[in-house]
Amino acid sequence: MSSDSANQYLNQYRENTNSLFDEFLKEKTKQANSIGKVPTQLVKKFADIAKRGKRIRGALVTLGYEVAGGRNKRAILDASIFIELFHTGVLVHDDLMDQDKLRRGQPTIHLQFAEYGNRIKAKPSSEHFARSMAISSGDFAFYLSWEKLLTSKFPQKLLFKAANIYTNTALRLVHGQVLDISNTSIQLAKQKDILKMIQLKTAEYTGVLPLIIGATLADLKDNKKLQAIKNYGLALGWAFQIQDDILGMFTDKKITGKPIGSDLREGKITLLMLHLAKYGNKQQKAFQKKTLGNPRINKVEILKMQQILIEAGSFNYVKKLGEQYVKNGKRAIKTLTNNQVHSELLSSLLIYILERSK
Amino acid sequence: MSSDSANQYLNQYRENTNSLFDEFLKEKTKQANSIGKVPTQLVKKFADIAKRGKRIRGALVTLGYEVAGGRNKRAILDASIFIELFHTGVLVHDDLMDQDKLRRGQPTIHLQFAEYGNRIKAKPSSEHFARSMAISSGDFAFYLSWEKLLTSKFPQKLLFKAANIYTNTALRLVHGQVLDISNTSIQLAKQKDILKMIQLKTAEYTGVLPLIIGATLADLKDNKKLQAIKNYGLALGWAFQIQDDILGMFTDKKITGKPIGSDLREGKITLLMLHLAKYGNKQQKAFQKKTLGNPRINKVEILKMQQILIEAGSFNYVKKLGEQYVKNGKRAIKTLTNNQVHSELLSSLLIYILERSK
Repeated sequence: MSSDSANQYLNQYRENTNSLFDEFLKEKTKQANSIGKVPTQLVKKFADIAKRGKRIRGALVTLGYEVAGGRNKRAILDASIFIELFHTGVLVHDDLMDQDKLRRGQPTIHLQFAEYGNRIKAKPSSEHFARSMAISSGDFAFYLSWEKLLTSKFPQKLLFKAANIYTNTALRLVHGQVLDISNTSIQLAKQKDILKMIQLKTAEYTGVLPLIIGATLADLKDNKKLQAIKNYGLALGWAFQIQDDILGMFTDKKITGKPIGSDLREGKITLLMLHLAKYGNKQQKAFQKKTLGNPRINKVEILKMQQILIEAGSFNYVKKLGEQYVKNGKRAIKTLTNNQVHSELLSSLLIYILERSK
Repeated sequence: MSSDSANQYLNQYRENTNSLFDEFLKEKTKQANSIGKVPTQLVKKFADIAKRGKRIRGALVTLGYEVAGGRNKRAILDASIFIELFHTGVLVHDDLMDQDKLRRGQPTIHLQFAEYGNRIKAKPSSEHFARSMAISSGDFAFYLSWEKLLTSKFPQKLLFKAANIYTNTALRLVHGQVLDISNTSIQLAKQKDILKMIQLKTAEYTGVLPLIIGATLADLKDNKKLQAIKNYGLALGWAFQIQDDILGMFTDKKITGKPIGSDLREGKITLLMLHLAKYGNKQQKAFQKKTLGNPRINKVEILKMQQILIEAGSFNYVKKLGEQYVKNGKRAIKTLTNNQVHSELLSSLLIYILERSK
């Protein structure tokens, strides 16, 4: 079993949706252009970042649809973009909250607007201007996402169901985000809050939501299968988070589009950090306390933290946990589908998520 | 003709919706409570601000519905709350962008969370924590608003129409917000951008959207009447903006819940300021340049600006403009309805908007 077929599916999805993104966002740019210069900048900068995504969530919408027996490929491709628009909006707000500098290999939107604000000598400051523009970009994205979903070519009854699932998950996502915001220091954060946050932000939102929306638009009603999709999605989401944590600590920005060790610098309490805080020795814990959330840590310290995470068994722990989720996911596939191609693809995707390098 | 019947309608609306607000937000608080402490704080603080609104937009939804012949009072009251939830979210983001301190007589949400952040010693700073929480509160409100609208008791076909109008107007509202953000200095701002901003932020959003949503949920299809509602809504919205500009410059916070002269301090280019920049004499313009957007202006300077706005005829100009919009609105009413009670109420509302003191 390899990640090949998943990789191929994702590439195909990106290829199939390139022009759909372009057309939709071009039309939006045109509308903004009739309103004013800065609104046009907002849409252009947003469109540029939106198109650069990995589009995993969008692809999961189409996959959930196909697995559930949906046949209207053109309609689901078009509808699936809604979640990519939403996700980009979420990231724009998230980057502002995390004070991130890079996103998808580009400066984050608030940094782009800080530069723009400098040029137009924005008051009270270019930084404040940038923040306001980033907030507005996210808000814009949310309603763009609604437009995309609600105008897609599915029976209203199904769109309605999908819209309610979307709303529900988005509200839970915000709660996850709030937990994320408040979990800024290892002293304060409780393990149960961290796990809850991952459940809401990644497992339910990244893993389950797109697949279930796809299945809903395919009019899947079999409760057993719906539950199996949820179980599969949860496993996929947790595996996704685990790989995210590993990438955020061990991989270079040339590959991920984010600086190496950024999670450490930001004080993100990942599964790696939770394990270390619990099972590390005295010196290791002291080093963690010193570096986690310290914006001035250097490359040597990041390398040392990598070493510690390996020595304390934290790296191995999350790797094993990831493999466990892959197993859980595979178990769910059996209930989900008998189709050999789908089943193979869903398995491959679990591997892909855990092996991906960005 | 007086504002009495409008006043009565609004009071009645508030009374009728109090328990609907309470029930809905209590349920949301309960859900948040099962997730965590800070999520609960988010919902509680949001709920408190949401309930304190004047609820003009919500009342306009029910009014549009009734005028268009809708009969299901209970359903429209419940659905109408969606726009109040949305509006509160918009204000939370807006207050953050404007760095406002007071909203509806209370500290703004970001100030409340700055205080909370101080208590929990939030990192990197309580100010940053507060910003993140305010952004999340707004995002939460947007999806809460969708939940309210989509689960309301109307035929899906009508809800769909309403949802598409909502999306469209919200996207235009964000563009208006972006114009507002970029119009931070009288030197930069062009009159056409200011007028466009008012058109998007107030006329289309505050004036037209709620009425049209109400009429849509009543299944109004007569294009002539729909156009008349739009015309009436635009007039109402412009009148609303005019009174907002006057209140922002001439009225005390004991009444408005915002400090006197706050528009001047923030550098808001209102219709008053546009007129003064165009028709003021040399000294008046110099004083405007010195004070507009100056965060350190004192009460004496605010009083002097009031004097100048009266002497330069700016106050009189916007007052007259407001009366013109009331006339336009009244003209639209004739096409809109033959019903004496509705017609009288719509007229009264125009007066109310222009005479309101908060």
